[in-house]
Amino acid sequence: MASQRIFVIGGVAAGPAAAAQAKRVDPEAEVILVEQGTTISYGACEMPYLLTGVVAKPDDLILLTPDQIQRTRGVDARILQRIEAVDAGRRRLRVQDIATLETREERYDKLVLATGAQVRMPAIEGLEGDRVHAFRTLADASTVDAVSRGGRSRWVVLGGGFIGLEVAEQLALAGHRVTVLAPGGAMGSRLAPSLQRVVEDVLRGIGVGIRDTRATGIRHGAPGAPIAVRTDDGELVGAEQVLVVTGTAPRAELAAAAGLRIGATGAIATDQNMRTSNSSIWACGDCAEVHHLVTDAPAYVPLSPNAFRTARVAGTNAARRGRGAPERFRGSVGAYALKVAGLEIAIAGLSDEEARTAGFDPVSVDVTHSSRAARMPGRSPVEIHLIADRKSRRLLGGQVVGQDGAALRANVLVPLLRERATVEDLYDLDLIYTPPVAPSLDPLLVAARSLQKELDR
Amino acid sequence: MASQRIFVIGGVAAGPAAAAQAKRVDPEAEVILVEQGTTISYGACEMPYLLTGVVAKPDDLILLTPDQIQRTRGVDARILQRIEAVDAGRRRLRVQDIATLETREERYDKLVLATGAQVRMPAIEGLEGDRVHAFRTLADASTVDAVSRGGRSRWVVLGGGFIGLEVAEQLALAGHRVTVLAPGGAMGSRLAPSLQRVVEDVLRGIGVGIRDTRATGIRHGAPGAPIAVRTDDGELVGAEQVLVVTGTAPRAELAAAAGLRIGATGAIATDQNMRTSNSSIWACGDCAEVHHLVTDAPAYVPLSPNAFRTARVAGTNAARRGRGAPERFRGSVGAYALKVAGLEIAIAGLSDEEARTAGFDPVSVDVTHSSRAARMPGRSPVEIHLIADRKSRRLLGGQVVGQDGAALRANVLVPLLRERATVEDLYDLDLIYTPPVAPSLDPLLVAARSLQKELDR
Repeated sequence: MASQRIFVIGGVAAGPAAAAQAKRVDPEAEVILVEQGTTISYGACEMPYLLTGVVAKPDDLILLTPDQIQRTRGVDARILQRIEAVDAGRRRLRVQDIATLETREERYDKLVLATGAQVRMPAIEGLEGDRVHAFRTLADASTVDAVSRGGRSRWVVLGGGFIGLEVAEQLALAGHRVTVLAPGGAMGSRLAPSLQRVVEDVLRGIGVGIRDTRATGIRHGAPGAPIAVRTDDGELVGAEQVLVVTGTAPRAELAAAAGLRIGATGAIATDQNMRTSNSSIWACGDCAEVHHLVTDAPAYVPLSPNAFRTARVAGTNAARRGRGAPERFRGSVGAYALKVAGLEIAIAGLSDEEARTAGFDPVSVDVTHSSRAARMPGRSPVEIHLIADRKSRRLLGGQVVGQDGAALRANVLVPLLRERATVEDLYDLDLIYTPPVAPSLDPLLVAARSLQKELDR
Repeated sequence: MASQRIFVIGGVAAGPAAAAQAKRVDPEAEVILVEQGTTISYGACEMPYLLTGVVAKPDDLILLTPDQIQRTRGVDARILQRIEAVDAGRRRLRVQDIATLETREERYDKLVLATGAQVRMPAIEGLEGDRVHAFRTLADASTVDAVSRGGRSRWVVLGGGFIGLEVAEQLALAGHRVTVLAPGGAMGSRLAPSLQRVVEDVLRGIGVGIRDTRATGIRHGAPGAPIAVRTDDGELVGAEQVLVVTGTAPRAELAAAAGLRIGATGAIATDQNMRTSNSSIWACGDCAEVHHLVTDAPAYVPLSPNAFRTARVAGTNAARRGRGAPERFRGSVGAYALKVAGLEIAIAGLSDEEARTAGFDPVSVDVTHSSRAARMPGRSPVEIHLIADRKSRRLLGGQVVGQDGAALRANVLVPLLRERATVEDLYDLDLIYTPPVAPSLDPLLVAARSLQKELDR
């Protein structure tokens, strides 16, 4: 059998992983990774930590250079290559070399789309100019880092999601004055109001102001003069710099133009083998839908663990040439966390609003309980918002906020959410009790008990 | 229907919980709790922390006095009452009042045994005398605390299980020189050798010597002269005080004398309703066997969460008078942890040896992985020993040791072990990744991957 030619489009996280996996599964294959930027394979989740020097310089986040992925993985990586179009019928790509601006055609047998995501830009005026920044790529982060080092100033962060809060925290720790415009509060509707207040309090404690409002426009003054960000409550917030982190949107234009099915979420529709609606094209990472294990429906869950897992599945299946059963990505419960000002904020499964949208009848409780036994050093409150479906008593989601073990506690919910466990199954768990680490009834069990009672009403 | 008379024997943890629960289920019942000591309802797990003053005084550990449990729970609690015999046929107890030495007979309709456990004493000479201490009851802990405050001295701790290590740590932190005689090393065969070394290193760092040997005798000198503990490698270890924490044995003599079935573990045999072989007698807490969810067989798992859960079930079922379905204790995977010298040591499920004994074919790996992403402050190594059955690939147990999130990581194994999950189910989990809290692949997932490879060999 002739050697196959596998193209992977997108070089940040899922792309290199899929390419390396494809080469591993079929060492005879020609595997080509194309990226429009100048770097591939970097740790995007660690970019905020450039701003305080925890990560010393952008290059430290690069995991593999094109040269290294060629040498160690046998993947032919090409930077500064823009894919202008995919001809899915003829299995051809139209590629522009960004350096020379020349366009050429490339043939593929299998194609993996790992085109990632971009900022979901708000529809407001004034987003242009060199003092308005995104924080999506390593190039963005490098710019923000360089500007931040240029002197203390006022930053307005548009967006109170996890990237917004992480960058706001790091900017504040770097000495800037930071205001976050967070419509719906910190983490928006994903976090229960009582937990939002805890988050907003600790951020205020390090000098980050959070305002439940959205920007309606940005007015640039004369060069050197402050920027004014107009909010929908009619105020003007002065700043020297503006950061736009208003959400994550899949980059699915190329796929859409190629006639691939796009899901209701706006991301590329896939099956559990990460195959798109075209049998020679797979998608993975932040451009692709995944199966949500709580809703049992397609979802857009652009998280790093999903990127690597879907990449592995897409890479395997693109390379496997029909041998054996295709690899399967069972799905995700969408668990993630951030840590700001010493506080961990973790979310697993659905929010109340998402649960209602998915057709459940969510019942939820808020519980505060100590992270360790009474008197033990290092103990602090753990705040839990726990959600179950009224009739089935099935767990739908949980939010855990605290300074001591909040994220790792949320991890206990992951297997339960995956297996459609009830609140009884959670309360049944014989979780560890030892005074210096966890109280007699872990906060998770206290929350489960409280939710049982609420369901019994 | 005439009001029923429910006796509960044993006042530390399970007894008061069972008594309170029985009264809750049947408020008309006369519920009598008898305890041979002077205190009921105390936090035994926190007793080691008396020695460094984290818990200021023994009384601080008392949760409910006899007066309080009477007033707030309606339970008639009687201290200094020794049960000499249970006549299960006639439903009578022979009770001795320890203060007056008078003996009387008491009638019961239902009986709950919560007689607890005692130290599994070694068969050696020299255990008598006021410088050889147990550490089981609040009275024991008060004595050890008082002696410890009397001046710095050399302590030899017989037993390297979790109580031995916790007390040894606290004695060392209180300024004493401590040697632990731990046959099989720290935690014995329950902990894999590579993890034992980590534990022993940190304990050595705070001045606790751990020796893989057992005591063969204790020689007392003249009053005021040192004690010499002889070891089975022929040495003599000098000390002023000796602590005997050589394991936990169920107190099942009363049950055995009453003709109740005793399990192979030596604890009182129970069904999943916590009923003994006599239909009017239930057992709970450290005197009772429980169903082990990994072996699917009776086991002796004397842990606080089991005590409270079995107490609730026993109390409910003793009181319920046949209405509805009896409450059920599904079982335990035996998860527990301790923290010494900043290091958490957590164990869930079976050890390799226990797995072999239970008829499995255990395959295990040792993995070390960072608790957080590279460069992140607060990161430290997490050591994991993970065990699965060779053929079924079912997870059998895990041991997690580290300074950052070891115990809470072990908690993730609890639902998996309960549901008979495979190593693939573990690797499949989309556990939280965020650089300041957890690395891209959590140590648990790294261990799962490593174990998959080992099983594939």
